[in-house]
Amino acid sequence: MEPAINTSQEDPARLSGPIEVDAELVEDISSLIETGQRGMVLNVLTDLHPADLARILSHLSKDLARDALEWLPADMGGEVLAELDDDFRAGLANDIPNERLTAMIDELETDDAADVLADLPLDVAKEIIGALEDAEDVKELLSHDEDTAGGLMATEFVAVRSDFSVADATEEVRAHADAIADIFMLFVVDGPGHLTGIVTMKKLLLSPATARISEIMNDDIVSVPTEMDQEEVARLMERYDLITLPVVDGVGRLVGRITIDDIVDVIRDEAEEDIQRMSGVAGGEEATDSVFRIMRGRLPWLLVGLAGASLAALVILSFEASLAAASILAGFIPIVMATAGNAGIQSSAIAVQGLASGDIWASDIKMRLRKELSVALLNGLVASAVLGIGILIVGPAFPAQVASPTQLAYTASTALLIVIVLATTIGAMTPLLLDKLGIDPALATGPFITTSNDILGIFVFFMLAEWLYL
Amino acid sequence: MEPAINTSQEDPARLSGPIEVDAELVEDISSLIETGQRGMVLNVLTDLHPADLARILSHLSKDLARDALEWLPADMGGEVLAELDDDFRAGLANDIPNERLTAMIDELETDDAADVLADLPLDVAKEIIGALEDAEDVKELLSHDEDTAGGLMATEFVAVRSDFSVADATEEVRAHADAIADIFMLFVVDGPGHLTGIVTMKKLLLSPATARISEIMNDDIVSVPTEMDQEEVARLMERYDLITLPVVDGVGRLVGRITIDDIVDVIRDEAEEDIQRMSGVAGGEEATDSVFRIMRGRLPWLLVGLAGASLAALVILSFEASLAAASILAGFIPIVMATAGNAGIQSSAIAVQGLASGDIWASDIKMRLRKELSVALLNGLVASAVLGIGILIVGPAFPAQVASPTQLAYTASTALLIVIVLATTIGAMTPLLLDKLGIDPALATGPFITTSNDILGIFVFFMLAEWLYL
Repeated sequence: MEPAINTSQEDPARLSGPIEVDAELVEDISSLIETGQRGMVLNVLTDLHPADLARILSHLSKDLARDALEWLPADMGGEVLAELDDDFRAGLANDIPNERLTAMIDELETDDAADVLADLPLDVAKEIIGALEDAEDVKELLSHDEDTAGGLMATEFVAVRSDFSVADATEEVRAHADAIADIFMLFVVDGPGHLTGIVTMKKLLLSPATARISEIMNDDIVSVPTEMDQEEVARLMERYDLITLPVVDGVGRLVGRITIDDIVDVIRDEAEEDIQRMSGVAGGEEATDSVFRIMRGRLPWLLVGLAGASLAALVILSFEASLAAASILAGFIPIVMATAGNAGIQSSAIAVQGLASGDIWASDIKMRLRKELSVALLNGLVASAVLGIGILIVGPAFPAQVASPTQLAYTASTALLIVIVLATTIGAMTPLLLDKLGIDPALATGPFITTSNDILGIFVFFMLAEWLYL
Repeated sequence: MEPAINTSQEDPARLSGPIEVDAELVEDISSLIETGQRGMVLNVLTDLHPADLARILSHLSKDLARDALEWLPADMGGEVLAELDDDFRAGLANDIPNERLTAMIDELETDDAADVLADLPLDVAKEIIGALEDAEDVKELLSHDEDTAGGLMATEFVAVRSDFSVADATEEVRAHADAIADIFMLFVVDGPGHLTGIVTMKKLLLSPATARISEIMNDDIVSVPTEMDQEEVARLMERYDLITLPVVDGVGRLVGRITIDDIVDVIRDEAEEDIQRMSGVAGGEEATDSVFRIMRGRLPWLLVGLAGASLAALVILSFEASLAAASILAGFIPIVMATAGNAGIQSSAIAVQGLASGDIWASDIKMRLRKELSVALLNGLVASAVLGIGILIVGPAFPAQVASPTQLAYTASTALLIVIVLATTIGAMTPLLLDKLGIDPALATGPFITTSNDILGIFVFFMLAEWLYL
């Protein structure tokens, strides 16, 4: 049996298997905890994987979750802590005695320990770190920004010298077998600790016991510096299909390793944050966040949107005479806004995504412009035709409001075509320009492009209406 | 040196290292190919990782890309093919002789071979499959839906019997060492091929040569059926930090394995598709897609948006008398639309995300409703106050249009509060209701919720305006 800190596939005994983690289970556990049936609770919970346990805990009230967490064996409690959402974990940890927290965190690998500690109040974290076995390593990890390679890495790894024999190296693996859940490769370092090569487990297994590491190692290695941004680390591991990535300090000394399972979390988190940012939610909202925290994440963009829309309102107000002359024009405000917004979001989302993945380069600007203009013209012609025909059909039913359906159809179709071309171009080009200027193009998606396209669209429509319709 | 089909970290020699993959490099390579300098081209290209090569090729014209691909050694060409975007690859492959395609595809692992073949014209694919070494395996893989575990898996794996000794198992690893880039675990099967356990490389390395596999294997295994959806596979591997996942057929026989690097691509692809769907782009647009294909992905939502906005226009038209009486009201159309849209997108994005990740359950509906209503009320009060104060300040500057700023402020603020509460609630509840009904809640994000909230918002505003302002 593997040691309990093992959360990898080497120990899938903890996978929930036949037990379904759902509302029913949560209710059952809830009432078991409430009635103090510790034995029964542990019976159910200790069969589950820590990731499932964490999900159950986040659906319990804080008091019950804390009880359950305190009842669990320290090793399992630690793993559950590591799996919980930051906010929920911080709330729980506040109510747990420091000695118990220390015992739980001591069971974790250094990267997880650092993550848990980073969310605790500073004085509590300091006290706990001092009492940890790996105090030095954890302190070192906490010194890195948590969104960098240094913040992601763990300090547990197997390092061997190039003059080791395969047998020596195997013993080194054995010495670390308990501390490291799963070992995918060995790192080769020189005297001062500089990374000089790697040896995969396959190579080690298949080489004769007397062979030297220097003969079997691969010295053409990819490593990243501690300060590399996690998004860049993710792109690198993803692009080159890496499972483990060594992290080095400023002078090339091996200081840690990042494994792909941590990167999977980064990719998922960044994707969720992208979607939230596009939806006007700041700061990474979690289901377990408090009402006040959710409000803080959402209010800013509601107010920015309100401000943008107020500008659009002022544009409309400036065409008040036209509106008074033909109030039918007000009906085109949502049509112009929705279409300008949609066309702009479409092209900007693609541009931002392409830039992030490296499929589009800022230098591709001419080629992108040609492509986007072609698409905008084609889509614009179709949408305008549909709108124009719609007006010709529906218009005559409102003789009091629509003086000349043909003229209105002509005006509205022309305006829509121009708006779609403008909005698509602005949506596609803004991210590329921002990228050229060194500004994160993701800032341009959603909210800002939509608002400016709304305002521009309304302006173009009323200008054309004054010219062609009135 | 590892065999050339190795794209894993065991062979990072191919990582680009000092060569920067950028527009300049593409231009250099472009002119080298144009002038037919094959030797020079290969000198530069063969130092690069296939993933980087693929990126360069997608920035070349189709003819030049095909030349480069034909000049590369077959093994490398195959790897590049596997890394290219579907559309671009299909376009290139059309121009490459079948024998050359066969040679390149033969160098790939079965899962990549199947992916490449799936995008070729049916007659070409059939001819090539017949000529492949692994024809049977590839045919089998192609019989699975490409978005399922069966479509993701590779058929290369190391399987041993439980009565094997560690030494036997090691020889089995050796026999597969060339065909499988990196081996993370061995699968234990019985006579008919049923999966009965796993052995990690660490365990194998550290166990005595004479030990039986049955003594060291872990028989508590997680496996997935071939028909499991790739999103579910991804969630599973992600949640339990798995590196390799065995795939079994209907009767539990081992038929393949999925490795985490393929899942990383799934997670990235699904995230990109989510963002595209939210942006009203269907079908997974790639930077290399043709104008016509891009148009097809974007036009449907432009037209749906146009239809939705036309309904909003009809609502406005039905309040034409009010508009004629006070054309200032038209200015509130963008404000109500933008705010209703934003509030709805915020809450629906969080609900959809929470449901997908398992953080929110459909049964949480009451708890979510309470939380969302609290947030909506708080944000609504702040936004309404800001709007009301804005009108009180700006209104008097437009005496001709605004008869009574106080009354207008009161009306607009009340409407905005109601609209925010309604839009937030609809945004948060629709995904949960859809999930309860067994419909994919992601369908509800973005477009549909925005449009319906726009229409509802405009209706509420004009109803209130007729009642309170006119």
